[in-house]
Amino acid sequence: MIKDNLKHGRVTIPTDNDFIKETMEIVEKLGADAIRDCDGFKLPKEIKGAAEKIYSTYFVARGDNEWANANIKELQQTYLMTNHILATKDSLTIKIMEGYFDQQVQPDSYHDVKEFWEVIDRTTGEVVEIDKWDYNEENVTVTIKETKKWHEYTVSFLAYCLWDPTQMYNHITNNWGDKPHEMPFDARNAKTNKYIFEAMHKWLDEHPETDVIRFTTFFYHFTLVFNNLAKEKYVDWFGYSSSVSAEALREFEKEKGYKLRPEHLIDNGYYNSTFRVPTKEYLDYIDFQQQFVSKNVKKLVDITHEHGREAMMFLGDNWIGTEPYGKYFENIGLDAVVGSVGNGTTLRMISEIPGVKYTEGRFLPYFFPDTFYEGNDPTIEARDNWITARRAIMRKPVDRIGYGGYLSLAYKFPKFVEYISRVCDEFRLIYNNINGNKPYCGLKVAVLNCWGKLRSWQTHMVAHALWYKQIYTYLGVNEALSGMSVDVSFISFDDIKNNGISSDIDVIINAGDAGTAFSGGEKWLDIELITKIKEWIYNGGGFIGVGEPSAVLNGGHFFQLSDALGVDKELGFSLSTDKYFKTKLDNHFITDDITESIDFGESQKNVYALKESTEIISYKDGNLLMSANSYGKGRSVYIAGLPYSPQNSRILLRSCYYAANKESQLKKWYADNINCEVSAYLESKKYAVINNSNENQETIVYDGNGIGEKMFLAPAEIRWIEI
Amino acid sequence: MIKDNLKHGRVTIPTDNDFIKETMEIVEKLGADAIRDCDGFKLPKEIKGAAEKIYSTYFVARGDNEWANANIKELQQTYLMTNHILATKDSLTIKIMEGYFDQQVQPDSYHDVKEFWEVIDRTTGEVVEIDKWDYNEENVTVTIKETKKWHEYTVSFLAYCLWDPTQMYNHITNNWGDKPHEMPFDARNAKTNKYIFEAMHKWLDEHPETDVIRFTTFFYHFTLVFNNLAKEKYVDWFGYSSSVSAEALREFEKEKGYKLRPEHLIDNGYYNSTFRVPTKEYLDYIDFQQQFVSKNVKKLVDITHEHGREAMMFLGDNWIGTEPYGKYFENIGLDAVVGSVGNGTTLRMISEIPGVKYTEGRFLPYFFPDTFYEGNDPTIEARDNWITARRAIMRKPVDRIGYGGYLSLAYKFPKFVEYISRVCDEFRLIYNNINGNKPYCGLKVAVLNCWGKLRSWQTHMVAHALWYKQIYTYLGVNEALSGMSVDVSFISFDDIKNNGISSDIDVIINAGDAGTAFSGGEKWLDIELITKIKEWIYNGGGFIGVGEPSAVLNGGHFFQLSDALGVDKELGFSLSTDKYFKTKLDNHFITDDITESIDFGESQKNVYALKESTEIISYKDGNLLMSANSYGKGRSVYIAGLPYSPQNSRILLRSCYYAANKESQLKKWYADNINCEVSAYLESKKYAVINNSNENQETIVYDGNGIGEKMFLAPAEIRWIEI
Repeated sequence: MIKDNLKHGRVTIPTDNDFIKETMEIVEKLGADAIRDCDGFKLPKEIKGAAEKIYSTYFVARGDNEWANANIKELQQTYLMTNHILATKDSLTIKIMEGYFDQQVQPDSYHDVKEFWEVIDRTTGEVVEIDKWDYNEENVTVTIKETKKWHEYTVSFLAYCLWDPTQMYNHITNNWGDKPHEMPFDARNAKTNKYIFEAMHKWLDEHPETDVIRFTTFFYHFTLVFNNLAKEKYVDWFGYSSSVSAEALREFEKEKGYKLRPEHLIDNGYYNSTFRVPTKEYLDYIDFQQQFVSKNVKKLVDITHEHGREAMMFLGDNWIGTEPYGKYFENIGLDAVVGSVGNGTTLRMISEIPGVKYTEGRFLPYFFPDTFYEGNDPTIEARDNWITARRAIMRKPVDRIGYGGYLSLAYKFPKFVEYISRVCDEFRLIYNNINGNKPYCGLKVAVLNCWGKLRSWQTHMVAHALWYKQIYTYLGVNEALSGMSVDVSFISFDDIKNNGISSDIDVIINAGDAGTAFSGGEKWLDIELITKIKEWIYNGGGFIGVGEPSAVLNGGHFFQLSDALGVDKELGFSLSTDKYFKTKLDNHFITDDITESIDFGESQKNVYALKESTEIISYKDGNLLMSANSYGKGRSVYIAGLPYSPQNSRILLRSCYYAANKESQLKKWYADNINCEVSAYLESKKYAVINNSNENQETIVYDGNGIGEKMFLAPAEIRWIEI
Repeated sequence: MIKDNLKHGRVTIPTDNDFIKETMEIVEKLGADAIRDCDGFKLPKEIKGAAEKIYSTYFVARGDNEWANANIKELQQTYLMTNHILATKDSLTIKIMEGYFDQQVQPDSYHDVKEFWEVIDRTTGEVVEIDKWDYNEENVTVTIKETKKWHEYTVSFLAYCLWDPTQMYNHITNNWGDKPHEMPFDARNAKTNKYIFEAMHKWLDEHPETDVIRFTTFFYHFTLVFNNLAKEKYVDWFGYSSSVSAEALREFEKEKGYKLRPEHLIDNGYYNSTFRVPTKEYLDYIDFQQQFVSKNVKKLVDITHEHGREAMMFLGDNWIGTEPYGKYFENIGLDAVVGSVGNGTTLRMISEIPGVKYTEGRFLPYFFPDTFYEGNDPTIEARDNWITARRAIMRKPVDRIGYGGYLSLAYKFPKFVEYISRVCDEFRLIYNNINGNKPYCGLKVAVLNCWGKLRSWQTHMVAHALWYKQIYTYLGVNEALSGMSVDVSFISFDDIKNNGISSDIDVIINAGDAGTAFSGGEKWLDIELITKIKEWIYNGGGFIGVGEPSAVLNGGHFFQLSDALGVDKELGFSLSTDKYFKTKLDNHFITDDITESIDFGESQKNVYALKESTEIISYKDGNLLMSANSYGKGRSVYIAGLPYSPQNSRILLRSCYYAANKESQLKKWYADNINCEVSAYLESKKYAVINNSNENQETIVYDGNGIGEKMFLAPAEIRWIEI
């Protein structure tokens, strides 16, 4: 039977215990073609055949405590640093586990502590000689001799991980009581490595009902360390510090030709957060682990394929080493990646992943009791999530969508089920109409930072999709771009140094706080880099700086591109120089569509115009907040901050066209109402107008020739029109 | 005849043309004992005898264009830097005077440009070899060969000063038309040097009516450079860059044993602003010029004394080299210093000057038409000025007060004259009651920055007494201290390195933006410094940090005293570390008297508590704004900003007592109402309670035993009570 692909397929749902009949009902209603298991219960064998595909979660390196206990020295490890402790006498004893959760981590004194640990005088930065300190295993303390009084000391120590952080989080959050703590074992060890692949074969043999192995995930968890109160202490979704081990460090030395110091991973206690300008050593370590992980994941995938199943990776949890935009990811040969869609940015993060057959986005809300309780309407969150993600889907769709949680919970909310069944239909229609074609893009925009392609759509992220006061102002740039009718790429400073700037790029965006990997910090002191960028702008390129772009104090400027930007930031050193240019222009191309006062988020203080010709677009309380500037044949735009909103998205779009010197090209496949956007699929001979708001909207829609026509759209409407 | 010293004396007034009779009337009314001349007219000979003392303004190095023109190569000089100019080809021509005012300055090509000029590649920081550039005198351009494309270049050049900046400012502001531009000549040149002293003798001979020579001022003007539109371009009240000359630079090399580079004075175009952490070379240059200037000023003073007159210095204008808290100032032997009193801080800046017989404060408003016009009440400004300054006078009075401007203008405002006559009486009563004794000080407080004693009461100042958005938040600290019942000193980082911390200091305050001379920047990386301060606090010292105290990124902290402060600032690198401590205390000793929400001025973002024990006193929008912390036996207080207000002054006072661990000592000679303050003169057996507001106030006044008594004060009242 051939099913209607507008009514069926591309949708995954969870199921529940003893819920086969109702599951089938919802499969039918949503046109779902896949059923997945979920945390907390396993699929019954009878599920086979209930949908075209059955997904099963599979944990590679945890969930087998028998193995873990029998091979306790092969558990995963992590690098930890103590607090800074002040020496007030000429010796100092540091309780190294202070502030850590002893059920999660334990110091590793099995391997030589003098080889793998480091005591640092943080006041001078000097490493304390190994004969000046000792570890007392019984007291779990390090005692340092001949300390320098009033200096601060830290101990960096290797620890064993006794509990997988995700299982620990769920365990603690859901009060799982005496359910065993799943101990993570390390594929670096030959014995464990062998065991992992054998276990995979065995599991596949034992689970014929499964079509798709949903790896959750592979070998190493992102850094997630808890404190002595069993609360989160450190979280970095990109952190590699829990992928370390004595074996890895020794292997690293062999492969890369030099020995890593603990400090190369500890990094003053910042643990190479993705906000840190990465060091060579850390980049080497990432490369080293990505090679190891991808090689071993490929083996798992090959086994999966041998057994005639598909291999799907969950983007998160133990994903370290398989960053999907990394060098080795495509070699793995995964069939699919699935990830959680919080917004347009995370959708693009998933949908753009190269080297897989398909991608899947897990939409919100989860079918969990925190949303699905009597009196609450889960449809509200579902609609917000859908509208937010939809504009990104219009630019590059995921291949499938899905939901997670307890289906029996959602089943009690028929209005919700009705709503998501319409979402599924809308998604399938979009997917079919796009038909694999690329939408019209008026410009090519490149986001420039230290990470470039590796962390495409992942800039400024701390913990996956969580809000932080210090990041929302920059995340808005990604979120705006995720649904904008421009071609987006992510490039690194090294890309520019090594390969120059691709001639087809119209606009480069540099957004971030001074000194971070996203602004670039000391990278901007690189002569080759700065001159290549200046040359490129001067010869007609467009540059947009958000926050503290190109910021590092040098040669009389804080913004190293201050001449191109026409603005700089006052740090106090040039207060003696009069600042005369404060007059805001009455209007400007960039702010032509705005309807309310501009939200700069955390904004910036003390930015000022360097010259009269700087076009001041926004100025408030002595601070320049937005401006544009000509530089040779090129143009730059400065914006103090850009949290996501439809208005700010429009401001960024217009900034791009202005910077690119292509204002006349703006009104093609364009809606003048900031709540509406147009995506045109020229090969499909169709275009769509979407209303991103929950209100009726009136807008003029411009076609590819710039001919405008008035249109009325219902709340959240998507309207398809033949070209 | 012995005059009543409560009714007569300690007051200077200006006079006016043809105004002898009315002048005498006002002399009588105010009890003035001195009459001064004023810009724009000279005292008539008949003034002699109209008061005990006649002051005449005297200009040492300008006002004699005949000499200047005859010795044009001996004019004063200044170092200037061009704009940063981008090289887009392999040669570059820079118009060096672009942006400068050619009536003020002209390039000096009389001295060897290759010796005194410098062309710098600001992108690399490298000096361009002297055979790679040439100066074209006719076109006023420097052409650089073999430039590196997309690098920025600047030319640092020596220029002659053709116009004294103060006269220029007055000339332009008052439209003096074809009145000659007064050309400043340089005492560094032997011929001019000799001439200056001869002229002094001659002038004294010709002006027997003058008792006090009011030097306005000596040899070098603070840096004040105008732009091509004849508007202020650069102003630094402390700037030494217009004290430079070919002769001085050659002499410097002889004295200090090394050659100064132009860049040592140009400093990237920041010209060693007082906000810059001073370099060794700049400090050497300051020392070198202070020696020269003080030696030569001493000669002028000696001549003045030979002629039986007094020598008074005006604190401002051409004061460079005679910073009154500098090493050589006391050697000069001046009789007096007079300065303008804008507030309590400037009053203390004057009244504390060491090594002179007396100090004089010139109060506001000036008798100028901008205030004295029909319909305006100049009494309002006079009262504000008096109340603001009075609390500082209570701590350390100037010896005299005075006014400036056109007396005939003030004469038309009898209510104003009446008011200032009461001010004069109030001042004399305060002065007599204090009787040279030191008021009770509950604590010793030291303000710590790069400048220390040299710039006592002068921190964070750009142009004298002008408001800048970036400074008011810190000026509030000085202003609060100027009237607080604590002993105040100013110490430098070098003082602590060289001499440790005086054991009688209770509290050290470090206030300023990161990287500035006032916060300290890289000084905090000095191991000796940081350990001495930590030791001192740990052993019981009090530390107060305002803004970004001890800020420089190192060893995992931004605030190098973060362990003592209990707070640090998030720059983005430690976002992965959870910040749990956000709970504000319900009340705290420091904020016990406050009556309204706290004003932190420009405030700070992203400061957070490092530990649970940090006492959070103010927290808003995710930012910690005020806190306290114990550190060993010592305590620290953090405040995000402290613009001046009575409430903030009280917060600082209480912060000092709290940091000093002397809360129980607070309520001695203390008023609980924030608008009232108490000063006790134990030797004089008197104390005074002042009302700093223009409203009635009720307060409890505590005596030296902490016994409180309710008191009602009229607006602005000062009440004297016998002990």
